Amino acid sequence: MATTEATLEAPAQAPAPEHVPHDKLVIMAWSGDLDKIWPTFILGTTGAAMGMETTIFFTFWGLFPLVRNDVHITGENWMQKMMSMMQRPGIAHRKLSKMNFLGMGPWMMRKLAKQYNVASPAELLEMAQLMGVEFIPCQMTMDMFGLKREDLMDGMGEPVGAATYLGFVAEGAAPVFI
Amino acid sequence: MATTEATLEAPAQAPAPEHVPHDKLVIMAWSGDLDKIWPTFILGTTGAAMGMETTIFFTFWGLFPLVRNDVHITGENWMQKMMSMMQRPGIAHRKLSKMNFLGMGPWMMRKLAKQYNVASPAELLEMAQLMGVEFIPCQMTMDMFGLKREDLMDGMGEPVGAATYLGFVAEGAAPVFI
Amino acid sequence: MATTEATLEAPAQAPAPEHVPHDKLVIMAWSGDLDKIWPTFILGTTGAAMGMETTIFFTFWGLFPLVRNDVHITGENWMQKMMSMMQRPGIAHRKLSKMNFLGMGPWMMRKLAKQYNVASPAELLEMAQLMGVEFIPCQMTMDMFGLKREDLMDGMGEPVGAATYLGFVAEGAAPVFI
Repeated sequence: MATTEATLEAPAQAPAPEHVPHDKLVIMAWSGDLDKIWPTFILGTTGAAMGMETTIFFTFWGLFPLVRNDVHITGENWMQKMMSMMQRPGIAHRKLSKMNFLGMGPWMMRKLAKQYNVASPAELLEMAQLMGVEFIPCQMTMDMFGLKREDLMDGMGEPVGAATYLGFVAEGAAPVFI
Repeated sequence: MATTEATLEAPAQAPAPEHVPHDKLVIMAWSGDLDKIWPTFILGTTGAAMGMETTIFFTFWGLFPLVRNDVHITGENWMQKMMSMMQRPGIAHRKLSKMNFLGMGPWMMRKLAKQYNVASPAELLEMAQLMGVEFIPCQMTMDMFGLKREDLMDGMGEPVGAATYLGFVAEGAAPVFI
Repeated sequence: MATTEATLEAPAQAPAPEHVPHDKLVIMAWSGDLDKIWPTFILGTTGAAMGMETTIFFTFWGLFPLVRNDVHITGENWMQKMMSMMQRPGIAHRKLSKMNFLGMGPWMMRKLAKQYNVASPAELLEMAQLMGVEFIPCQMTMDMFGLKREDLMDGMGEPVGAATYLGFVAEGAAPVFI
């Protein structure tokens, strides 16, 4: 609005930009479900391919896909162990948020992805790491679920808190909560 | 803050804006649940009414409400057909993400909406289209679920990928993942 | 990119900022689940602590945690009453979005939080209010579910609609939908 009133005599006052580019993307991966992992890593890899500085902050259930597939039970006390038993960690063991049908839903979804040349979550994850997408685990989640650094796959950043996530947002990154 | 220290002698250096308007809105409609369709279309129509350039990118389960109500089974192979049978497409057949109770939850919710003059999802969808909200289907989802252009309602844009969605974000659109 | 081509002779034209700070945060709290309340209030309190102007807009299921714990049944007609019976309101009665197991999941989660010095949802809520995070209830949700002002805890703002939420976004607030 100020633009219309600006006179030629006062060119120093730059007009407010109408809209402003986001050149950073920060995804909060909260869910560990198979059907949410796809958008997380598709946005992650696409963002990186487009030259956006892309970070994924893995929190709550979202951290379980990053547990190494050969780790079965995580945690130190019985509650944490039970949590991991009730929901086996690892990207190879993800379920759907709906239509799970004792594993038939995820099986069909993975099958369809293959048939239609859609990269699998594990492939997308690897691709994201190769493309330089930054992976950050949530410290609080690791504490609560008793996850240790050695439980997680390689290439993860230092565990941090919400302030780091919001630091990216405050700097102007586009936030996506999945 | 820099503004207060700016002197008249150095007007060429524009101060960094304290915060910057988003004049575009891009919603990723990932969920097809009744209780998520409401915020999707309420934000969509309200954004358009406020003069924001508004786009909704329909992906994954979010694409099913846009299948025409008279289409029962979608897909080309048995897995895709089974998927659509387990979750009947069309905006008239949406379920709640919780408290579904064999359809009683959605029935009550639609009833309450009517009683309190809240527009139905189908009305909001129509309104959004009339107001110029752009509807874009996700190509990958259409491939995986075997959805064809003729399965979808009229007025949908060309199917595209995540790069188009992130293109809007990179240009400065406010991203909302629902 | 324009920056590199800018010449000293034309300083009046301010270069487009490469990325722009978000100094406001607006969270749409749609879900009332225990495992979503945590990120809502952790982001809320952290945003406020970092000096971001932080607003939480509570809508749909997200409004139920703000019903006073001593209020059991809300609503005016039988459908609204049944809704609140099927899902008891109040922050002390939240369930997990998954692994609920008749209340054992939430019990374990609250137990683990305590053990690892993670603030409880009720503590985070109180902290958020003390730190000046603005709490806004969604008018439409209150209408649909028959919630009255006196059902909600103290310190809530005036009930408003989606236009208020998008007003924050349009002014440049970073939007997070949880």
